[in-house]
Amino acid sequence: MAEIVSPLAPERFPALPAIAGVRLASAHCGIRYQGRTDLMVALLDPGTTVAGVLTRSLTPGAPVDWCRRALPRGKIRALVVNSGNANVFTGKQGKDAVAATVKGAARRLKCDAREIYVSSTGVIGEKLPAEKIIAALPTAFAATSPDGWSDAAQAIMTTDTFPKGATRTARIGGAEVRITGIAKGSGMIAPDMGTMLAYLFTDATLPASLLQAMLVAGNERAFNSITVDGDTSTSDTLLLCATGKAKHKRVTRAADPRLKEFRRALDAVLVDLAQQIVRDGEGAQKFVTIRVSGAVSARSARRIGLAIGNSPLVKTALAAGDANWGRIVMAVGKAGEKADRDRLAISVGGVRIAAKGGPVEGYDEAPVARHMAGRDIVIEVDIGIGKGRAEVWTCDLTHRYIDINGSYRS
Amino acid sequence: MAEIVSPLAPERFPALPAIAGVRLASAHCGIRYQGRTDLMVALLDPGTTVAGVLTRSLTPGAPVDWCRRALPRGKIRALVVNSGNANVFTGKQGKDAVAATVKGAARRLKCDAREIYVSSTGVIGEKLPAEKIIAALPTAFAATSPDGWSDAAQAIMTTDTFPKGATRTARIGGAEVRITGIAKGSGMIAPDMGTMLAYLFTDATLPASLLQAMLVAGNERAFNSITVDGDTSTSDTLLLCATGKAKHKRVTRAADPRLKEFRRALDAVLVDLAQQIVRDGEGAQKFVTIRVSGAVSARSARRIGLAIGNSPLVKTALAAGDANWGRIVMAVGKAGEKADRDRLAISVGGVRIAAKGGPVEGYDEAPVARHMAGRDIVIEVDIGIGKGRAEVWTCDLTHRYIDINGSYRS
Repeated sequence: MAEIVSPLAPERFPALPAIAGVRLASAHCGIRYQGRTDLMVALLDPGTTVAGVLTRSLTPGAPVDWCRRALPRGKIRALVVNSGNANVFTGKQGKDAVAATVKGAARRLKCDAREIYVSSTGVIGEKLPAEKIIAALPTAFAATSPDGWSDAAQAIMTTDTFPKGATRTARIGGAEVRITGIAKGSGMIAPDMGTMLAYLFTDATLPASLLQAMLVAGNERAFNSITVDGDTSTSDTLLLCATGKAKHKRVTRAADPRLKEFRRALDAVLVDLAQQIVRDGEGAQKFVTIRVSGAVSARSARRIGLAIGNSPLVKTALAAGDANWGRIVMAVGKAGEKADRDRLAISVGGVRIAAKGGPVEGYDEAPVARHMAGRDIVIEVDIGIGKGRAEVWTCDLTHRYIDINGSYRS
Repeated sequence: MAEIVSPLAPERFPALPAIAGVRLASAHCGIRYQGRTDLMVALLDPGTTVAGVLTRSLTPGAPVDWCRRALPRGKIRALVVNSGNANVFTGKQGKDAVAATVKGAARRLKCDAREIYVSSTGVIGEKLPAEKIIAALPTAFAATSPDGWSDAAQAIMTTDTFPKGATRTARIGGAEVRITGIAKGSGMIAPDMGTMLAYLFTDATLPASLLQAMLVAGNERAFNSITVDGDTSTSDTLLLCATGKAKHKRVTRAADPRLKEFRRALDAVLVDLAQQIVRDGEGAQKFVTIRVSGAVSARSARRIGLAIGNSPLVKTALAAGDANWGRIVMAVGKAGEKADRDRLAISVGGVRIAAKGGPVEGYDEAPVARHMAGRDIVIEVDIGIGKGRAEVWTCDLTHRYIDINGSYRS
């Protein structure tokens, strides 16, 4: 945990009410950090279903391999997450550490090992001392409570400067259900200490296949629409657990209209957590919303948005408060997506500054300069050739990013 | 031209001998810069053939559009290049500026306008004062000389800290031919002021189609194998002109064994110039060679190398002198190319530090630390699954990159 909290952090950790069937706790098991917790456990009542999205990295960590194999079963009884060590590029030792951890937890909960999910975040290439985690499990399991959210969110932090949580309610049929999540992440995805992890919990009663479809769709517009540095972690993990405690009629089809409100709430929690990760981006001083419209498809719009959001030249200009639309044009050009230079229009802070292949003559620079000096920047790019839209979020690239990532691993 | 020369710059501009049929000059026409030249012209004798590779950007500048249309003709009589203004995102005005320039030059040389090639590099989105270029042409043309290389290389600089040139000789049949080139570029490709331009000249007698095939192939292993910041310019232009003054027998097939030595010399000039651009990378303090072997193909190896070379996390670690192999593993994983975590091996400065899915126990850190403290870093990554090889070059990501790119455009 860094001493300087991001200037973009929310004022406080939100009040997260209990979700029936979910209990959480944190513990200190001394993997790497001193004077802070480094283990989070969540216990889920029997019958809880689970869906997940995992990193696309071809060099994933052992915990990701494990979750990928467990997910088709669709059931979860416990989640065990440690910080300080990523258990990545640790070969057979890493695999054994996962096996020992899930076995230890499953024995205690009297469940199948494939109902135990694990994540690890922290340094790469160091042996994970699984025995410390296993030794801490009995006390941690005993300490779980329905309101352990804040402690849990803090235990999984690495270079994060604040814990991240979000909650929303929705109705399915007539019954109120709740979705609550916690997350960690700081470099979009700095592998030393910056993996993105997010765990969502709901009391809705939904089969794993339905959860999976909604999670994948929502994730595209949330964690897949943010970037801090364009680097992809070996450990990114997003899970959604449904305890089935809410009293609503059975829903079996993703297209069921009764799920509309639930989808909206799920998407909102995902976007809220994703934006918090950007707000904690390494060295971030500005939160940047990039709205792309007029692309040939939503997918194309998202790719163009991410090309802008990933460009070091755009991001350094943002850090300097420079509405450098020339670099935005460049980023659109390199996205590899269909675009027409002569139809492109760019607005910053709501002011149109470039259109039809050139700068807008005599636009009012004063409001643009005021906007660029602020903490929340909005860039709108209209490609002018279709109806595809997307919104992506990023932060600026500052000296502090280099300080954070250029320091030795110690 | 920056006041601080890159610490990675060559000791001096090389001695570049004349190429029969090529004359160059530079001039000051006051487009943007004071107290320095900003126009370069090269005159080519009648019969000179030309090949070219242009940016893949979908928002290219007007000069790139022009060159793309002229290239199928395969003939060149003059090259007119200005610095200080990129003539990009300038709409119809930009197109008109190109048309006026090539018309003015063609009238003077009594040739077809499509035999005049133009490039512009500098700020985006400002009207190019073509009339200043046209007014300067008579004096510039009159001032051309066979040994104007250094002046020409200086006139096309923008944020470059040193002029770039290279030369090699080869034999075709029994005759000696020469290839000489100049280039500019500093951000691989910072669009404000950092476009990559390279012009090569040879006295060989070769049809444009043959030049084109060899140029495309050589470019893959040269300018397409370097990265400073992963951003793609709207103006990148690489031309190869052959004056046909050398006395050798006609060669018509790319596979002709008499071209072997020429290819090698061409590739060497391309690589030399490409590496000079990396050595002048914005803020660069270290020159980094990334050798990838054991990939499924050369193309796959190059993509993996560029994923490593483009990773901000790898580049900030390099700036700090940290042999952070965990970030290299991450970059391999995100490249989207076939890889197997458990076969991956990584060496830094010739010392194997990771292999078979984990760190090499007890490797000698002292020579690695010494190597990382130097100016020239070599990273070798063996993917372990095939025979594809590639070498790419990059530089580190430093505070100075942010200073350079975070300053206002004025």
